[in-house]
Amino acid sequence: MTRDIVPIAEAEISRWDHEADVVIAGYGVAGASAAVEAARAGADVLVLERTGSWGGAASMAGGFIYLGGGTPLQKACGFEDSVDNMAAFLKAAMGPGADDKRIDDYCAGSVAHFDWLVDCGVTFKEEFYGEPGWEPMGDQGLMYSGGENSFPFNTIATPAPRGHVPQMSNKKQGEASAGYMLMKPLVETATAAGARAVYDVRAQRLVVSADGRVTGVVARRYGGEVTIRARRGVVLATGSFAYNEAMVAQYAPRIAGRPAASIEQHDGRAIQMAQALGADLAHMDATEVAIFADPQQVVRGILVNARGQRYVAEDTYPGRIGQLTLYHQDNTAYLIIDADAQEEAVASLSPQLMMRPPTWVGDTVAELESEIGLPPGSLQATVAAYNEGAARGEDPLLHKKPQWITPIGSPVGAIDLRESTGGFTLGGLATTLDAEVLHVSGEAIPGLFAAGRSAAGLAAWGYASGVSLGDGSFYGRRAGAGAARA
Amino acid sequence: MTRDIVPIAEAEISRWDHEADVVIAGYGVAGASAAVEAARAGADVLVLERTGSWGGAASMAGGFIYLGGGTPLQKACGFEDSVDNMAAFLKAAMGPGADDKRIDDYCAGSVAHFDWLVDCGVTFKEEFYGEPGWEPMGDQGLMYSGGENSFPFNTIATPAPRGHVPQMSNKKQGEASAGYMLMKPLVETATAAGARAVYDVRAQRLVVSADGRVTGVVARRYGGEVTIRARRGVVLATGSFAYNEAMVAQYAPRIAGRPAASIEQHDGRAIQMAQALGADLAHMDATEVAIFADPQQVVRGILVNARGQRYVAEDTYPGRIGQLTLYHQDNTAYLIIDADAQEEAVASLSPQLMMRPPTWVGDTVAELESEIGLPPGSLQATVAAYNEGAARGEDPLLHKKPQWITPIGSPVGAIDLRESTGGFTLGGLATTLDAEVLHVSGEAIPGLFAAGRSAAGLAAWGYASGVSLGDGSFYGRRAGAGAARA
Repeated sequence: MTRDIVPIAEAEISRWDHEADVVIAGYGVAGASAAVEAARAGADVLVLERTGSWGGAASMAGGFIYLGGGTPLQKACGFEDSVDNMAAFLKAAMGPGADDKRIDDYCAGSVAHFDWLVDCGVTFKEEFYGEPGWEPMGDQGLMYSGGENSFPFNTIATPAPRGHVPQMSNKKQGEASAGYMLMKPLVETATAAGARAVYDVRAQRLVVSADGRVTGVVARRYGGEVTIRARRGVVLATGSFAYNEAMVAQYAPRIAGRPAASIEQHDGRAIQMAQALGADLAHMDATEVAIFADPQQVVRGILVNARGQRYVAEDTYPGRIGQLTLYHQDNTAYLIIDADAQEEAVASLSPQLMMRPPTWVGDTVAELESEIGLPPGSLQATVAAYNEGAARGEDPLLHKKPQWITPIGSPVGAIDLRESTGGFTLGGLATTLDAEVLHVSGEAIPGLFAAGRSAAGLAAWGYASGVSLGDGSFYGRRAGAGAARA
Repeated sequence: MTRDIVPIAEAEISRWDHEADVVIAGYGVAGASAAVEAARAGADVLVLERTGSWGGAASMAGGFIYLGGGTPLQKACGFEDSVDNMAAFLKAAMGPGADDKRIDDYCAGSVAHFDWLVDCGVTFKEEFYGEPGWEPMGDQGLMYSGGENSFPFNTIATPAPRGHVPQMSNKKQGEASAGYMLMKPLVETATAAGARAVYDVRAQRLVVSADGRVTGVVARRYGGEVTIRARRGVVLATGSFAYNEAMVAQYAPRIAGRPAASIEQHDGRAIQMAQALGADLAHMDATEVAIFADPQQVVRGILVNARGQRYVAEDTYPGRIGQLTLYHQDNTAYLIIDADAQEEAVASLSPQLMMRPPTWVGDTVAELESEIGLPPGSLQATVAAYNEGAARGEDPLLHKKPQWITPIGSPVGAIDLRESTGGFTLGGLATTLDAEVLHVSGEAIPGLFAAGRSAAGLAAWGYASGVSLGDGSFYGRRAGAGAARA
């Protein structure tokens, strides 16, 4: 990183290589959504994409878009939901520290946003997928993706699935991810509306007019400098800082060394370009966290920490298990699962998927406890308490749902889940609900907008799958519309 | 907060109300240390203090300065320590995510820093205080202040106390805090060396020359604007952002609504003034956390979470208990203590201190568990396991030291420690080891220095009492020396 991140005065630009009304850096979900809205508003739109094609992290993703409040897909699958119910869940699940106003705003616009996606050509199959898992096994369109139907959230809001998944034509052949099936129609819609794109162009610094307005971008292309004038506004949509080691060390050290579900282009550059202009940040410590174990396996066992204690209902959203393990249990977990449950888990999966074998096995829990090296008596007490409740079909400690409760028998194994997490960063530029980038003064920086994981979104600490594509597309639209108006 | 935080160009300043070589904002421990070094280096020094007198948060504090590596005080009290041993402890205790290079730097200079403090007139009584507590009960000079002699740190580095406490003339009369006894000689030394101070002056924005150098400060005094020219450099030393609600919500939401051991002037203004210039930040989510329960009481009971599980050795540093409770246990803890232990705890304290009475009592643990509302069987299993080990004088789960292990008898009480934490923020401006403020480009901002809790220091997540006065004074000196040289 060099001094070339400092904003440059417009007066110093001798020639513009490109011009547009709205210039968008990054052609992932936020950039594409911004491009659609800006172009539809009549603006001449130019998207600068650093790689050789559109897509970003979105097109590699499982494709969940977190939507609710009674979308047509929710209704078609037989689920009731309301804006208030959705907001109640998100306020509990995206914190502590979530921005309630942003959640209210997002929930109020959620059904309309679903309709907008459909109007852009994104299709959703009207089928619910109810098995434990990170994603549907087939092309089903709806799934629980945040632990809505698990403790404690099922006591806070009426459970409703909100993970909306674009339909794939042939998932089993691996032809395209659901994320690709989201991105393709969005980019086609943007293109049809007149948005242009240039590829292999990396935004490097912002151009600022004498009165403090962002009026362009200086970029690199094959080692040369390219200047792009933005007559109305610039939208930053280049993703997270998951692959910027220095920023991760400064802001989210727990996730250091374990980026996942992200792409290497997520280097935080756009965040720093705006910081150099005095932009404010928010929720920089927040991260999505996956735990590398199949939910079909996890749900049939019990998770214990380094003290042999349970700490999470095993039937909740696996990303919540990941967060609680990484942040609250020092990235240490062991999945205790008996032979019958392991067999059942293996049978539940399609053959091509991998199931982790036990790291240790024992004829008794005492033996297993000793093999793992847990404090003497700790796992034995935990299993005894779990089995005592399980005999009654109950989990008084953590309220796992009865359908997943079976006493742990013998032989019994443990899967080593230490250091088995990874994820991406959720913090970024502080923005208004209109996606304007906020200066530390509290005022919007004229002409500068941000959305997607370059910006802080719905999540302050918690997470649900679909929140990033959700708030990225939702506030991407706001950014595009705002920039076109500016 | 308004636009007046944006840096102003030097060309726009029509007249300087004050001038000095080195201008220091804030007359707490970092500002005073900077003033001493800058003045000793021959610079004309002016300190701008927002309140009516010097002192800052430091003069209200317990006064611990975290020092080691074999200080004369450690030796006089019979403790061995080394630079490497101190660094090994800090690397384990200040993270995850602590800056190893900063820790090495701090530890290498620790003995010399002790000598410097003594040379400035700070006195330390050569007596060790070994009782559980937040601070010494008397005027003893040395105490464990970070859990060095407790699990797990006593397995990572050889325990040595490093909480160095300036001697008070008459603590029991409440005449002066140890922090005051640190600040008084530092300010006297600075004054004797020629440093001047103006009071009731609040730094508002930085002045920047055409070539990007910080050359002054614009401040407010009784509603009017005051301009202060810094011929060589500006030092920001105005403390944390614990009292800036918006910043806490953005960066450290867990501590929202519970500032403690801080002062209202800690509004993050200096951090934002530098952010407006493109300064980078670090460890903004880190906080010190106190738990509002007397260590004499805590050590004689067991702490359990909302699941009735133990999670920390009760004889460790109470700040560590606070952090683990707030961050890892959702700010929920119950102290389980039997009648004999409670009586012993009360007897251990001086009469004027308050001891919290049990919130609930029971003849049996089962009764108490039900009173508290813990999951059925959870506390019973925990106490049974604790008592089983205690009968042998052991704590296999958490390794509390044998001297504090006694089986829990009857009658037994529980003290409600939910929402019983508070603290201050530890994150701030990213700086070099020479206390230069770093721009997001990775380069130092010419003429701008920061130290104390305006800057990110030794702690990324963990903490030990004395780290803030320690790194504040240590890097305050570097800031003053650097500004005088600049």
